[in-house]
Amino acid sequence: MAEISLTFPDGAIKNFDEGIKPIGVAESISKSLAKKSVSGKINGSYIGMNDVITESGDFQLITTSDSEALDLLRHSASHLLAQALKRIPKFANIHFGVGPFIENGFYYDTDNGAGNQVSIEDFPEIEAMMHKIVKEDLPILSREITRDEALEMFADDPYKVELVNDLPADEKITIAVQGDHIELDKGGLVPSTGWIKHFKLTSVAGAYWRGNSSNPMMQRVYGTAFWKAADVEAEIARREEAKERDHRVIGRDLDLFFTSQEVGSGLPVWLPNGATIRRQVERYITDKELSNGYQHVYTPVLSNLNLYKTSGHWDHYREDMFPPMDMGDGEFLELRPMNCPSHIMVFNHKPRSYRELPMRIAELGMMHRYEKSGALTGLSRVREMTLNDGHTFVEPEKLEEEFKSILTMMMGVYRDFNIKDYRFRLSYRDPKNTEKYFDDDEMWEKSQKQLKTAMDDLGLDYFEAEGEAAFYGPKLDVQTKTALGNEETLSTIQLDFLLPERFDLKYIGRDGLDNHRPVMLHRGIVGTMERFTAYLIEMYKGAFPTWLSPLQVQIIPVNLGAHGDYAKTVQQKLQDAGLRANVETKDAKMGYLIREAQTNKIPYTLVLGDSEVDTDTVTVRKYGEAKTVTMSFNEFQNLILSDVANYSRESEPAK
Amino acid sequence: MAEISLTFPDGAIKNFDEGIKPIGVAESISKSLAKKSVSGKINGSYIGMNDVITESGDFQLITTSDSEALDLLRHSASHLLAQALKRIPKFANIHFGVGPFIENGFYYDTDNGAGNQVSIEDFPEIEAMMHKIVKEDLPILSREITRDEALEMFADDPYKVELVNDLPADEKITIAVQGDHIELDKGGLVPSTGWIKHFKLTSVAGAYWRGNSSNPMMQRVYGTAFWKAADVEAEIARREEAKERDHRVIGRDLDLFFTSQEVGSGLPVWLPNGATIRRQVERYITDKELSNGYQHVYTPVLSNLNLYKTSGHWDHYREDMFPPMDMGDGEFLELRPMNCPSHIMVFNHKPRSYRELPMRIAELGMMHRYEKSGALTGLSRVREMTLNDGHTFVEPEKLEEEFKSILTMMMGVYRDFNIKDYRFRLSYRDPKNTEKYFDDDEMWEKSQKQLKTAMDDLGLDYFEAEGEAAFYGPKLDVQTKTALGNEETLSTIQLDFLLPERFDLKYIGRDGLDNHRPVMLHRGIVGTMERFTAYLIEMYKGAFPTWLSPLQVQIIPVNLGAHGDYAKTVQQKLQDAGLRANVETKDAKMGYLIREAQTNKIPYTLVLGDSEVDTDTVTVRKYGEAKTVTMSFNEFQNLILSDVANYSRESEPAK
Repeated sequence: MAEISLTFPDGAIKNFDEGIKPIGVAESISKSLAKKSVSGKINGSYIGMNDVITESGDFQLITTSDSEALDLLRHSASHLLAQALKRIPKFANIHFGVGPFIENGFYYDTDNGAGNQVSIEDFPEIEAMMHKIVKEDLPILSREITRDEALEMFADDPYKVELVNDLPADEKITIAVQGDHIELDKGGLVPSTGWIKHFKLTSVAGAYWRGNSSNPMMQRVYGTAFWKAADVEAEIARREEAKERDHRVIGRDLDLFFTSQEVGSGLPVWLPNGATIRRQVERYITDKELSNGYQHVYTPVLSNLNLYKTSGHWDHYREDMFPPMDMGDGEFLELRPMNCPSHIMVFNHKPRSYRELPMRIAELGMMHRYEKSGALTGLSRVREMTLNDGHTFVEPEKLEEEFKSILTMMMGVYRDFNIKDYRFRLSYRDPKNTEKYFDDDEMWEKSQKQLKTAMDDLGLDYFEAEGEAAFYGPKLDVQTKTALGNEETLSTIQLDFLLPERFDLKYIGRDGLDNHRPVMLHRGIVGTMERFTAYLIEMYKGAFPTWLSPLQVQIIPVNLGAHGDYAKTVQQKLQDAGLRANVETKDAKMGYLIREAQTNKIPYTLVLGDSEVDTDTVTVRKYGEAKTVTMSFNEFQNLILSDVANYSRESEPAK
Repeated sequence: MAEISLTFPDGAIKNFDEGIKPIGVAESISKSLAKKSVSGKINGSYIGMNDVITESGDFQLITTSDSEALDLLRHSASHLLAQALKRIPKFANIHFGVGPFIENGFYYDTDNGAGNQVSIEDFPEIEAMMHKIVKEDLPILSREITRDEALEMFADDPYKVELVNDLPADEKITIAVQGDHIELDKGGLVPSTGWIKHFKLTSVAGAYWRGNSSNPMMQRVYGTAFWKAADVEAEIARREEAKERDHRVIGRDLDLFFTSQEVGSGLPVWLPNGATIRRQVERYITDKELSNGYQHVYTPVLSNLNLYKTSGHWDHYREDMFPPMDMGDGEFLELRPMNCPSHIMVFNHKPRSYRELPMRIAELGMMHRYEKSGALTGLSRVREMTLNDGHTFVEPEKLEEEFKSILTMMMGVYRDFNIKDYRFRLSYRDPKNTEKYFDDDEMWEKSQKQLKTAMDDLGLDYFEAEGEAAFYGPKLDVQTKTALGNEETLSTIQLDFLLPERFDLKYIGRDGLDNHRPVMLHRGIVGTMERFTAYLIEMYKGAFPTWLSPLQVQIIPVNLGAHGDYAKTVQQKLQDAGLRANVETKDAKMGYLIREAQTNKIPYTLVLGDSEVDTDTVTVRKYGEAKTVTMSFNEFQNLILSDVANYSRESEPAK
C-alpha cells in the first residue's frame, strides 16, 4: 500500500496510508482538533474534511479559530441557500448564477422567471428550509467530473452551462455534492450542512448576469453567517446602524440631493438643503484658507490637452480622463482630471522670487473622472467633483515647516467639524518596487524621513504604509471609515518633486539667481465637496450641527391666526441676524408638527403661543431633547448665535 | 453717339452722352453738389467720380453728408497708407495683404520682413509722407484688367497673388490707380488723394494672414480718418478713454486675470485679485437671492445628452455645443450649454403643489459654449462661463407679479453696484416672421402686453424691439455699452411657455387637480461672472468700491523697524473685522510707495510713523484724493466698515 507524506506548518512530517482524509489526519492528532477542523489545505488548495487526500505535500488544517474559516462557512451557506430554494416547490425550476462568499456574508444570483422571483417575503420559508437541511447534516463531498458530465448535469441551468463552456479546455472540473444537491465548485467548504447553524438572509437586489448591463437581470439574494448566533445578531444590528447612517438614505429623507440617469449617471443634483450645507462648507474652508495665507483663484475646468501631456496625466492616467474635444483649429480641450497643472499655470504666470514663497494657491476646483457607471455611488463616487484643492510652492529647505503648518490647519478644521475618528497614515514608496516611482532615491529617503520627523515633532500618532505613496513623492493621508465600513482618505498632504521638473518651475533665490526649483505640496483638507458631505451626513447621522444645518430654526405658532404675526417677526429677526428660520404654516396637530421637526433633525424648534406673544419669549426645544425651555427672544438669539460661532462644539456629536 | 440713361433716387430720369462720368453728372446738377460728391453709385455698385459710366440704370451720388461716405474715405485712407509706405525707402519692398475700412477707421496688413516690420516709431514719417501725397491730389481711377495682367502687376506681392488666384474664374478683376500706386480693388473710393486730409495712424498689431494661425504673421497698421480734424481728435480721445477702461488692459495691470493658449483659448485664469472680486460678487448675489426667497442649488456641468434633446437645444443650438462624450454603456454626456434643463430637473424631482409656487431656483451655474477662437476676448467672450442663473416656476396668473418682483430686486442690485448707465428693452417677436417663434399667437399677444403693463406700472422707461425675443417667449433686457462701445445685455428676464410643455411640467392647483402647467421665467441679474466682472472693471476703471476691492487697505510704516509692529497690529485688527489689509514691507521711498498704492487703486492707504504709534492713530489717504486725515484707529475702522456696508454708494462712482 502506497503512503501519503504530509508536511505540517511546524515542519513536522508524517506519513499516512493511502485513502486518508483530512478528518483522519485531525483525529490522529487529537479529538478536539478534529471537532473544530473546518477544512484541510493540501499544497495551498482546499480539500474537504471527508475527501480523500491524493497527493503528498504541505498540509494544513483550517479550524474555526482561523479567520478564513468564516469564508468557508459563508461559501457553504450560499450552497445551503441554493439547495433550500430547489426544495421549495415554487422555486423547483429556479436557475442559478454564481454564489460566492463576500465581506461580511454571501450571496447567490438567482433567476426564477419574471413575476416569480425570490423576494424578501420568501425569506422565512427559505430560512426554515435551510435549517431543515442543517438538521439533516448532509456530508459535503467533492468530486472531479468530465466536461461532458458537467454539461449533462447542469443541462437545465443555462447560466451554469455558460460557466462550464467558458472554462479553459485543460481546466479540471469539480463539483460539490451535498445530498441530492450538486454545485459546480472548486472547494473550500465545511464538512457537512450541520456546521452552518447561524445565518440570516438579509436582502435581495437586481444584478446583471456577470455584471454586464446587456445581460439578463438576476435576483441576488444576500445573507450572512457566523459561528455564533450572537455574531449574526451583532452583524444585523451593525447593518441597521449603517443603513441609518447611509448618506444615500439620509440624503433622500432630508431632501439633500438626488441622482438620476435622466440628469446623468454619477452627476448628483444638490437640492436646496444639501446645497446650503455645501455652501457653508465652501465658505468656511475658503475663509479659513484665506486667513492662513492662501490665495484663492478660479481656474478653468476645460484646459488645453497639452497641459496634461506635460504633467504626465495623459500618459499615466488617461483611462480616467474624458475624451479630448477638437476645437477645429489645432487646439484640443480636455475636462481636467486634476487641478495641479492649473495652479502651476498661476505660479508660472510671472517670474517669482523667494520673497513670495511659500506661495499658497487654493481653489474650489471642479474636476472630472471618467468612471464606469457600475462604480458610481451617491455622493461618494461620482464623475464630477469639486475639490478643496491647494498647492503650496515652497523652498526645499522650508518644506517641513510648511508641512507642519498645513497639518496644524487641518487639525483645526477637524476640531470645528467635530471629526475625531481618524488615523494618520504616512504613505511611502514600495521599497521592493522602486521602479514604479519617480527615480531619485535620495529624495525619497530624505523626504520620507522629513515627514516622519514632522509627525514626531508634533507628537502625533501615525502608522506607516509602504507602497501607498504617489508616483511623485511620499504623502500623509488621513484615513477614516464610512458608515458602510470602507476605509477612505479624508485629507491628504503630498510632496511633489516631479511636477516642478516637468513644468520647469523656478524662482529667484536669496542668492539672486533665478534657477532655484521649488517643491510642490498638494493638499486637500476637506477633500471633495461630494465625498466630504457624504462623510458628514454619515458621521452626523443627518443631525447637522447648527452652523451647517439647512434649516436652523423651525417656528411653530400654536395658532396661525393668533400667533402667526409674532412668529413672522421672530423669523425676520433671526434672518436679519444671518440665521435660517422657517415658520410652519401647515394646518396640523402640534404634536405632529413637533415630531416632524425632529424627524427633519432641525436643531431648534420654537413653539409660540399666547404666553410667548405676551412676554416676547420663545419656548425652545433642542433637537434630540425632550425638555423645552422658555426664554426671552434675545436670550435665544444669543444662544443660537454662540452655538453657530462655536461650530456647536460644546455639545456632543451625534453618536 | 449712344446715350446713357440714369434714374435718380427721386425717380427722375436723365440721359447723358456716352463717356459721362459721375463728376459730370454732379456738375450738371449744381457746382456745390459736385464739390461735396465723394462717389457715384450705379445699379448698387460704387463708381469713382472720375470713372466713365458704362451702363444705364439707377444712379446715386454719395456726398460727404451721407454716413457711408466715411467708409469710402477710410477705405481710401488705407490705400494712401500703402502708397506712402512704398515711397519710404526702408519699406520699398513691403508686401501687402488686405486694407479695408472698419468701424471707426481702417487698417492695412503689411509684411516688411522679420526685423524690419512697421512699428509705431515709424508713424510720424509715414504720416508725413501720406500728407505729401494728399497735397499731390492724385486722381483715383478704376480700371478692369485680365487675370494675367493682375498676376504680372502684383508679381512681387505674394499675398496679392494669392488673392488673385483665389478669385473665381468668371470674376471681373479691377484695380484702383492713384499716381504710381496700384491696388487690387473693387471700388468705393474718394475722387483723389486730396480728399483725405484728416487722418491718424493709431496702432500696429500682429495678425495672421487671413486670420489663420498656420499662416504667416503680418503687421496690421491701424488708422482712423474723418472729414474734419476735430472729429479725428475726438476719436483719438475716445480711444484713449476706452483703452484706459479696457478690462483686458486693467486686468493685466492690476493682476486680475490672464488668458493664454497654454491654459486654453477662451479660458481665463482668475488670479487672486480678480478671484477676490468675483468671490465678493458671488457671495453678494447669492445672499441677495436667498433673502429674496430663492433656493440655491448645485447642478452638474455635465449632463445626459437626452436632456438637451428634450429641451430642444440639441436641435436648435447644436453648433454652439461641445461634442457629446460616449460613456461606453449607451449613455452620452454633454457639457451643458444652458442651466435651464438642470433646474427643471430640480422642479420635476417631486410632485409640486401651488403652495410651493413661485418656486425660485438659483445657481452660480457653469456652462460652456463651443466658440471659434477668433471670437474670444478677455473675460467678455469666453468658452466657459458661470452664470448667475435663476428660474422661477410660477402660476400663469402670478406671472406679472413675479416679473415685477424680479425687476425690483434687479434695480436694488444695480443701486448697490452703482450701475446707472443702462436702458430697458422689451424684446418682442418679429411680427413679420412669426414662424420663427413658438407657435401660440394668443400667448405672444398676452405676454408682451403683460410685460409692457408691468413696466408702465413700475413707471420705468423702456424701448421696444421687435424680433429680439427668444424663441420661447418675450423678454426684458437691460442694455449697456462696453468701454469699446459695443452694446451688451447685462441682465435679462425671459418668459418661457415652451420648456414647461416639452418637459411636461405640472403642479397641483388650488382646485386639487394635478394637471396645471407652470410658466417659467429665466432670469440673470448680474449675468455671467466673466462678463459682469469685465463690465465692472470698465465701469469703475479698475478703481473698485471698497467692498469689492481686492485689497482694501495698504498700510505703509514710515520705518519698518520702528513702526512695523504697530502696522502689523493694525493689519490684524482690520483682518479680524473681515477686511483685506496688507503691510508694505518693500524697502523704498515713502513717496514711491504711496504712488504705487494709488496706481494699484487701493481704496485706503495708511501711513504710520512715530506720531501714529504714540497716539494709536492712523493717517489715512483715500484713493484719488490728495489730502490725508489723521484719526484714531477706531474711527478709521468704523469709517471703512460703513463704507463696505454701504457699498461705497455715498461716494461718487469713478468717472
